[in-house]
Amino acid sequence: MDFFFNPEGIAVVGATTNPLKGGYAILKNLLTGYRGNIYPVNPRYQKIDGLPCYPSVSAITGHVDLVIVFIPAKLVPAAIEDCVAKGVRGVMIESGGFAETGQDGRALQQSLKDIANRTGIRLWGPNCMGLVDALHSHVFSFMDPYSLKHGLLLPGKVSLVVQSGLLSAGFLVDIMSHRIMGISKVCSVGNKIDVNECDLLSYLLKDINTEVIGLYLESFSDGKLFADLCRQSAKPIVALHGGKSKKGAEAAMSHTAALAGNYKIISGALAQIGVTEARDFHQMMDLCRSLAAVSRPVDRPGRIAILTFSGGSGIVTSDFIEEQGLSVAELSPATRDALARLFPDWMPVSNPVDLWPAIEKHGGTNIDVYSMALKAVLDDPNVDAVFIHTFAGNFRIGLNIADLAEQTRAAGKPAFVWLLGRHEEAFRFKEAALSLGIPVFQEISRAVECLAAVFHQKNPSSVVERSQEKEAAIPLPAELNNILETASGPLDEYTTKRILKAHGIPTVEEEIIADAAQCEKISSRIGFPVVMKGLQQGKVHKTELGLVHLGITDARTALRSFETLMEKMKGQGRILIYRQVEGKIELILGLLRDPQFGPCVMLGLGGIMAEIISEAVFAPAPLAEQDALELISRLRGQKIFDGFRGEPPVNRKDLARMIVALGDIGLKYPRIQEIDINPMIIGENGIVAVDATIVLG
Amino acid sequence: MDFFFNPEGIAVVGATTNPLKGGYAILKNLLTGYRGNIYPVNPRYQKIDGLPCYPSVSAITGHVDLVIVFIPAKLVPAAIEDCVAKGVRGVMIESGGFAETGQDGRALQQSLKDIANRTGIRLWGPNCMGLVDALHSHVFSFMDPYSLKHGLLLPGKVSLVVQSGLLSAGFLVDIMSHRIMGISKVCSVGNKIDVNECDLLSYLLKDINTEVIGLYLESFSDGKLFADLCRQSAKPIVALHGGKSKKGAEAAMSHTAALAGNYKIISGALAQIGVTEARDFHQMMDLCRSLAAVSRPVDRPGRIAILTFSGGSGIVTSDFIEEQGLSVAELSPATRDALARLFPDWMPVSNPVDLWPAIEKHGGTNIDVYSMALKAVLDDPNVDAVFIHTFAGNFRIGLNIADLAEQTRAAGKPAFVWLLGRHEEAFRFKEAALSLGIPVFQEISRAVECLAAVFHQKNPSSVVERSQEKEAAIPLPAELNNILETASGPLDEYTTKRILKAHGIPTVEEEIIADAAQCEKISSRIGFPVVMKGLQQGKVHKTELGLVHLGITDARTALRSFETLMEKMKGQGRILIYRQVEGKIELILGLLRDPQFGPCVMLGLGGIMAEIISEAVFAPAPLAEQDALELISRLRGQKIFDGFRGEPPVNRKDLARMIVALGDIGLKYPRIQEIDINPMIIGENGIVAVDATIVLG
Repeated sequence: MDFFFNPEGIAVVGATTNPLKGGYAILKNLLTGYRGNIYPVNPRYQKIDGLPCYPSVSAITGHVDLVIVFIPAKLVPAAIEDCVAKGVRGVMIESGGFAETGQDGRALQQSLKDIANRTGIRLWGPNCMGLVDALHSHVFSFMDPYSLKHGLLLPGKVSLVVQSGLLSAGFLVDIMSHRIMGISKVCSVGNKIDVNECDLLSYLLKDINTEVIGLYLESFSDGKLFADLCRQSAKPIVALHGGKSKKGAEAAMSHTAALAGNYKIISGALAQIGVTEARDFHQMMDLCRSLAAVSRPVDRPGRIAILTFSGGSGIVTSDFIEEQGLSVAELSPATRDALARLFPDWMPVSNPVDLWPAIEKHGGTNIDVYSMALKAVLDDPNVDAVFIHTFAGNFRIGLNIADLAEQTRAAGKPAFVWLLGRHEEAFRFKEAALSLGIPVFQEISRAVECLAAVFHQKNPSSVVERSQEKEAAIPLPAELNNILETASGPLDEYTTKRILKAHGIPTVEEEIIADAAQCEKISSRIGFPVVMKGLQQGKVHKTELGLVHLGITDARTALRSFETLMEKMKGQGRILIYRQVEGKIELILGLLRDPQFGPCVMLGLGGIMAEIISEAVFAPAPLAEQDALELISRLRGQKIFDGFRGEPPVNRKDLARMIVALGDIGLKYPRIQEIDINPMIIGENGIVAVDATIVLG
Repeated sequence: MDFFFNPEGIAVVGATTNPLKGGYAILKNLLTGYRGNIYPVNPRYQKIDGLPCYPSVSAITGHVDLVIVFIPAKLVPAAIEDCVAKGVRGVMIESGGFAETGQDGRALQQSLKDIANRTGIRLWGPNCMGLVDALHSHVFSFMDPYSLKHGLLLPGKVSLVVQSGLLSAGFLVDIMSHRIMGISKVCSVGNKIDVNECDLLSYLLKDINTEVIGLYLESFSDGKLFADLCRQSAKPIVALHGGKSKKGAEAAMSHTAALAGNYKIISGALAQIGVTEARDFHQMMDLCRSLAAVSRPVDRPGRIAILTFSGGSGIVTSDFIEEQGLSVAELSPATRDALARLFPDWMPVSNPVDLWPAIEKHGGTNIDVYSMALKAVLDDPNVDAVFIHTFAGNFRIGLNIADLAEQTRAAGKPAFVWLLGRHEEAFRFKEAALSLGIPVFQEISRAVECLAAVFHQKNPSSVVERSQEKEAAIPLPAELNNILETASGPLDEYTTKRILKAHGIPTVEEEIIADAAQCEKISSRIGFPVVMKGLQQGKVHKTELGLVHLGITDARTALRSFETLMEKMKGQGRILIYRQVEGKIELILGLLRDPQFGPCVMLGLGGIMAEIISEAVFAPAPLAEQDALELISRLRGQKIFDGFRGEPPVNRKDLARMIVALGDIGLKYPRIQEIDINPMIIGENGIVAVDATIVLG
C-alpha cells in the first residue's frame, strides 16, 4: 500500500488547464508539495504548467507508481487498462459516475473491479477525494487549491479514513485553518471498489506518523477483519458511523451505494472492539485530538482537579464530570494547604478551585496564581488530570500556556483547557496550545466528554489475554450434528435446547412423552407445576396454535393436557414436558448473522421490561468472557443483576459464559441464521433457557 | 425596576484611579456609553478622569437614581445607609465578601437585607457584575474595560439573567467578539439579596427590546412565582441550572451561598412551565439565538429539507433529525421536478439534497444552484424549514446569504446554516449572517438540536386554557379534615386512602374489621383472594413488621390471619381487609414539597421496573389535565400505557386526573409534607391506589 502514500512518479489522467475541472486542481495540488516526477496525461495538450503532457499513461517513459484519474466515468476502464499496460501499481479514481448513480454506473464499477481482480492492480475509489498527507505535503486530491494557500496544512498525529469527500476537503480546511488540530493523513475511500477501510487501517496501524485513527464510515467492507484489526490495535481508534436512521441509511445507499449496517449492531461492535464511537464531525475530531494529545492513563480512575476563574463554570463542569463517569478530585491536605496560602483568608479551599479571589488578592504582584495552583494540584496523588478554564486577552487571568505544557509534561498528567476570549486573542492562544500539544475546547461539556474518552479507553492488553482463553471445541452428538448439517428452517424447541445444552448453555430439565403412562410417570417425577407443549416441525408460534399448556398442577390435569395436545396435533408432532420455572428476571439472548460483522450475540431484557425499554446490546463473535461481561455491563438496567428487593444477585460470569458459548455456536455452524432464547429465566437455581429456537438457513 | 436599567444619574462608590480595582473599571465602562451624569464617590480623590469626586453619595448635589458599589464588604452597610439618606432608588453591590465567604459574610449580608426591608431601597447583588445593556451601551459592571474596545457590544434580541459573573463578562466578550450573537441586556444577580430572577424576569417580559430570555441559575428564589411568570410568558425562555451533581451543588453552596434544588424536580418544573432546558453555556446561547431568530412555527411538525454539498454530511444530518424528533421532508413532485432540472441526468433527487453534482454541472455559468434549490424547497408545502450546509471561501459553493435571508423571510420558513470555511472567510460569513438574522452553526448536531427546540416550543395559549379548567374544591368529611389539621407524622393506610378517595383518587375497596364475625362476613363479601394488614399509628413499614398477609384464598385462612395480626399488635391497632388487586403495571404516584417550587407531584414506574430504570418525572402543582398528560408523556417507558401483549390501554385521562388531584391536595393542605401512593396498580377495572401514606408536618 505504500506506493499510494509515497509513490515514485505520479501521472494525472485528466490533467487540464480548465480551473473548473478536478484534473486541474489535482495537478495544482501535486505541484504544491509532491517532490517526485509529475506526469500530466491528456491527449489534448502538449504541455500543462510547463510540464510535458502525455497522450496516455503508457506513453510516459519515466517510472510511475501511482496514477490519479479524473475523467468521465465511461472512459475510466480503458484508462485503467492503460495503467496496467504501463505496470502502474496503484490508481486513485477520483471521478464519480459509478455505483452511486444507478444501474449503468454499477456495471461500470464492476468492470473496474474485474480489471483489479484479473491484473492485481490496486484501485482506490472511485468517487473519492484521494489522499492528503499534511506531514509530507502530499495532496493527491481535487480539493480547492486556493484552500491550501497560506500554509494551511498543519501536520499532526491523527490520521483519518473517511467515506465522504467533505471530511478530506472542506472540513479539513476548516479545522486546520481554525487551529483546531493538525493531521497526519486523510484517506477518502469513496465507493471502496478495492482499497477499503481495512487496507488503510492496516497501513495506518503501522505508520509511525499516525498515533490515533479516526474513521467516518457509511458501511463496513469486511466487518470481521475490521473487528480483528481494531481489537489488536495499540492506537486509539475513533469511529463515526453515518446512516443510523432510516432516512440516513437511504441517503447512504445513494451516496456511496453501500449497505449501511444496523445501528445497534455497529454500536455494539465498536464498543466491544475498543473503538470510541463518535456522533458528529467536530466531536469526532475533538475525540481524536484529545486521544492524540494525551497518552493512556494507566490505572487512573479519572479524578479531575478543576482550576477556574468563575464559580459558575466550576459548578457546570462538576455536573458534567459526574455525568461522564469521572470524579471531582478530593484534594489532599497538602494541596489544600498550598492553595490556602494563595487565597485570601476568608476563602475556603475546595475543588472546583475558583482562582478569582486569589487573582484579585495578588493583582499587581509577580505571583502567577495559575502556575502555582497548577503545581499544587498536579503534585496531588489524588488528582489524575487537570481541567483549566482561562480567558485569552485579559491581563488578570493570565494562563501561561508554555508553563502549563511544561508542568503537565513533567507531572505526566493530562491538562485540558476551556478557553474563552476575544476572537483574535483566542485564536492566537489556540495556535500556541496546539503547537504545545495542549487540547483546548470551546465548550465545557465537550472538554469533559473528551477527558472521559481518555480515561475510559479500553486496555489493549486485555485483547491478547482473550485470545488465549478459548477452550477446546465441544463435540456434538452425531444425531444433532446431522440435524444442523441437513435440516432447514426453525428447529423445534426440544432439539434447539439439546443443541444449546451440549454447548454448555443450561436449559430447563425436560422430556418428550409418548404416551399416557409416560405422562403420569414423568410429570410426577419432574414435580408440579409443569408446562406441556406440542412440538410440530416448522411451527414456531406454539402459543397462538394453542399448543402450550402452562401451570399444570397435578397428574390428572397433565393427562388431560396430554390428550388435548395429541388430538390437536393429529399425530403430527411430539409432546414436551418440563417443570415450570419461576423467576422475576427474564432475559432474551440471541444470535443473528450480520452481513457486515458475521455472527453477533444479542442480550436484552425480556418480559414486560422488553415492552418498556426495548433495550438490547450486541457484540460480534467471538467473545471472550471479559467481552461478554462488558456486554452485560452495557445493558441499560443491568443493575438488576446485582440483586434487588431481596433477590439473590445473578452470577454475571455464568451469564457471560452462556453469551460466549452462543457466539461460538454461531461461528462453528455457518448454517445457523438465528438463535432466539426467549425467555432466559433467572430463577432460584440460576439461569436457564426456557424456550428457544434455532433457525437454519 | 426601570431605574436600574435607565437611571437618571449614577454614582460609583469606590471609584478609583487604580486599574487593578473594580471601581476603576466601573467608572471607565460608564464613561464609554452611559449618557447621564456620572458621580465618582471616594473620599481619597478630588477628581477622577476629569470628573469631580465626592466623599459620599449624600454629598452629591445632582439627582442620583442608581449607585454602584465596589468597596470592601464591611464598609457596604454604611454606604447603603448613605444612599438611603440621599434618596437613591437602587444600589448595585458588585463587591464580594458576603454570604459566599462564610458566617461573618452571611451576617453582613443579612444587615443589608434588613436595610432594604426597612427602607424600601432596592439592592441588586452583592457579589455580582451588575448589568450590561448592549443596545444602549450601558455597562454597569467591573468587566475589563479593554474588552469593550473595537465596538465589541453587539446589540441583539436576547436578554440574560445570570447567577454567575462569567456569563456577564468574559463569556459575553467571547460570544460577541466571535460573532455568535448579539445581546440586549445581561443581568448578573450574584447573591440575590433583594433583586432576584423573578424581578428581572418580570421586567424583561415587558421589555420591548427583549424577545428571548436566557437564565443561568444556581438556585430559585421563589419557584412558584418563577413558574407563574414562565407559564404566562409569550417570549421563549431558556434556562440552564448549574449544580446538578452532588459535587456541583457543593460548589453552588460556596459560590453564591444558594440552595441548589433537586435536579429532577427542577428539570420537571422547567419542562412543565414551557421553559427550554439548556445544559451548557454555549449550547444555551445557541438555543437562545435560534429562538430569537425564528418565530414559533404554528402547527408545523418540523419537516426539514436539507441542502448540502456533501452526501456524508447529509447522512449525518438525517440521523440527527430523526433522533431529535423532527423529520426529513418528503419532497413534493413539483419540488422534485424543479430540482431534477438543476441536476445532471443520472442524479436521482432525494432529500437530503446533495447539490454538488448540480454545482459541477453548472460550473462557469451564471446559474446560482443554491438559490434555485432553496426556492424549490421553500415553495414546497411539505417543507417546514431548511437546513443548508455551506463552505465560506470556496468560489464553487457560493451561498448568497442576503438571498437566503430574503427568500426565507418571504417564505416565512426558518433556515439554519451549517458553516465550514477558512477562518477569516467563515468569520465574515458569520458576521453577515448575524446581521441578517440567519442562525449559523459550527456543528450539525447542535444546529439540529436548536431546530428541534424551535419546533418543540410549547404553545403559550394552552396555559391560558388551563387556568380556566379548575373545578370547585371538594369538601372533605369533618373527621378527615380534623386529622389533617391536628395529626402529625405518617397517617395510616386506611385514613390516607379515605382522604385520597374523597379527592377523586380511586382506591381499593376496603374495610376495617373489628372481630372474627366481621372478618368472616366481610372477607366473603369482598371475594377472595384478599389482603389483610395490621395498621398501627406511626408504623409505615408494615411488611417488615409481619403485619401484611397477602393472597388469602378462603375464609378459614382469613380468620387465622385476623387472629395472628391481632395478637401481633397486642390491641394497639386495627385490621384492614381488601380484595387483592392483580395488574401487570405498577406505578408510584407521589407528592413532595420542594423548598423552591412548593408541592410537586411525582410519577414513576413501580415494581421491578422501578429497580431497573428508576425513572420518575416531576411537576410543580397546580397542574391542569393537559399538564398532567404532558407529565405522563415525559415518563420513559410510558408507551406501556398504550397497551402491550394484549393488555388493554390505560386511560391516560384517568391517570392525569389523579395526578391533578394529588397536586391540588398538596396545595390545599400545607401541613401535608409527602404523599406516597405505592403501588398504584393498573388492573382490570382501571387504576387504583392499593397502598398509600400521607405524611403530615
